[in-house]
Amino acid sequence: MDAAAKNKPIDQGVRLRVQDLIAHYVDVIDQDRLEEWPDLFTENCRYLITSAESYEEKLLHGVIYADSRGMLRDRVSALREANIYEAQRYRHLVGPIWVEAESEMTVMARSHFLVIRIMHNGETMLFACGVYRDRIDISGTPYRFIERLVVTDSHKIDTLLAIPI
Amino acid sequence: MDAAAKNKPIDQGVRLRVQDLIAHYVDVIDQDRLEEWPDLFTENCRYLITSAESYEEKLLHGVIYADSRGMLRDRVSALREANIYEAQRYRHLVGPIWVEAESEMTVMARSHFLVIRIMHNGETMLFACGVYRDRIDISGTPYRFIERLVVTDSHKIDTLLAIPI
Amino acid sequence: MDAAAKNKPIDQGVRLRVQDLIAHYVDVIDQDRLEEWPDLFTENCRYLITSAESYEEKLLHGVIYADSRGMLRDRVSALREANIYEAQRYRHLVGPIWVEAESEMTVMARSHFLVIRIMHNGETMLFACGVYRDRIDISGTPYRFIERLVVTDSHKIDTLLAIPI
Repeated sequence: MDAAAKNKPIDQGVRLRVQDLIAHYVDVIDQDRLEEWPDLFTENCRYLITSAESYEEKLLHGVIYADSRGMLRDRVSALREANIYEAQRYRHLVGPIWVEAESEMTVMARSHFLVIRIMHNGETMLFACGVYRDRIDISGTPYRFIERLVVTDSHKIDTLLAIPI
Repeated sequence: MDAAAKNKPIDQGVRLRVQDLIAHYVDVIDQDRLEEWPDLFTENCRYLITSAESYEEKLLHGVIYADSRGMLRDRVSALREANIYEAQRYRHLVGPIWVEAESEMTVMARSHFLVIRIMHNGETMLFACGVYRDRIDISGTPYRFIERLVVTDSHKIDTLLAIPI
Repeated sequence: MDAAAKNKPIDQGVRLRVQDLIAHYVDVIDQDRLEEWPDLFTENCRYLITSAESYEEKLLHGVIYADSRGMLRDRVSALREANIYEAQRYRHLVGPIWVEAESEMTVMARSHFLVIRIMHNGETMLFACGVYRDRIDISGTPYRFIERLVVTDSHKIDTLLAIPI
């Protein structure tokens, strides 16, 4: 970590592009444009859904784990074959968002999220909430996730959990 | 649509004023200042509450429909006569918000929303969630909605639905 | 109140630092870093949790009340002794946020909030929603709350309410 960079205030333009990346992410999921989802990550990346308890114990296993864009693509293919989106949709709410400098090439971001699940019959329920913990590549545009840890507050992970959060 | 304008980055000042309009909208509803609500629209406008299913099938009918500021004013008068606010309140959460250029005079915006309903006895419930799809007049200040489509995720629209979402 | 200041547009830098203060506030609560919470207030301050009904009747009593940073510190000590965080966590979602000029030294802010409570067994529930009504000292950095009124929509305040909202 670059201590000098870390203490510099974040440029407003960087902040806006980070917000846009985070917004874009929930957009492709909620609007069922999952094929665009892997493109929001760098080629070598880490995506993990885990619980707050596991995160605090530094146990970085989780319900969903991927360490390359290819693995994310495989997951999307599997979801399409299983027709998961027939049965349910998500609605993400996000905010607030923090952005912190890390180096000339990367920033760290955290954001609070809430996911509502809407079943095909119209039933809605509070599905998950927690924190996104991101490391983001800002060396080119568009910005991309190098790492996105989805830390859910509850350890009760629904066995239906298959769509990325 | 103006392709050149669409590709231009959104000016930061425009973006902030759009965010302010969207914030103002939920403020007048949640704080029971409904009389100010029609003024957030242009004289000729479109306001529609519909479900995601209907929206995807391009069926632009809905539970509430208005195509002029006068119709919005009539709705407020009707709500006041029915004393709807005696029985319930809303709390809107909004975020994230996207803004896209359309022309020199207009922008498109989308935002995720969640509405909690609070009954007079103190009971609270998740009432609705979905996306606001807006076309906004930015040719003068304050900015105003030319079109606001309220696309709810669930097709189960409560028959009590009378307050604008 | 300074009428000239009130009509001036808010500087973008001020707006961002206000957003950061509001974000920081929910961060220290949700991440169980409560010891940092009193430092977000000025030495002489007012912190109050009250219901929308009481607020509208100008009854500024509430479930939690403090008028100095010392009282906030005492509350944190009491919570630690009671091991409240063993039993429950919160997740705050916040948005939208409004900022209004008041004087050269202060701004007013309002923001919509939603709190999810996560019990130790993993159960989650919609715990509270409402509006933060803030008066903020912007004369130095970091910005601090002079007054934070937490106005909850429901008058049903859970008897377990002990953690700051």
